[in-house]
Amino acid sequence: MKAKAIFYHAGCPVCVSAERGVAAALDPQRYQVEIVHLGQQKQRLAEAEKAGVKSVPALVMGGETFHLNFGAALSDLKK
Amino acid sequence: MKAKAIFYHAGCPVCVSAERGVAAALDPQRYQVEIVHLGQQKQRLAEAEKAGVKSVPALVMGGETFHLNFGAALSDLKK
Repeated sequence: MKAKAIFYHAGCPVCVSAERGVAAALDPQRYQVEIVHLGQQKQRLAEAEKAGVKSVPALVMGGETFHLNFGAALSDLKK
Repeated sequence: MKAKAIFYHAGCPVCVSAERGVAAALDPQRYQVEIVHLGQQKQRLAEAEKAGVKSVPALVMGGETFHLNFGAALSDLKK
């Protein structure tokens, strides 16, 4: 079974770079990557926050949260 | 030919998490990952700095630099 990786973003330029550069580079044999646009899917903000996401872009996988550079703060996406 | 990805770290706990979580998750069919410990290989600090690495852990791939959370500033590794 593949492990799940969730890439949270907000469509920002830094987010697009991280999606193309890192999220798309994960091994498809081992990971199933879900892309979540928090600007468009605000109902998933709580889930991201619970996973420890402070800013986007961020990758949540293997129980850990990795912030990739800095695009926008999660708090700004709630507005 | 595989694309090159360089993972710069300094042996810190945040670095170890990012290495196991992200660097090791890259697709081995498409990427050749080199792991560089900047605390032990100080001669590579200049190259990392030139690539835009400000802190470790960081992943340099596809001409872009992705900082993964924050472990230590590059400036502190020069001391």
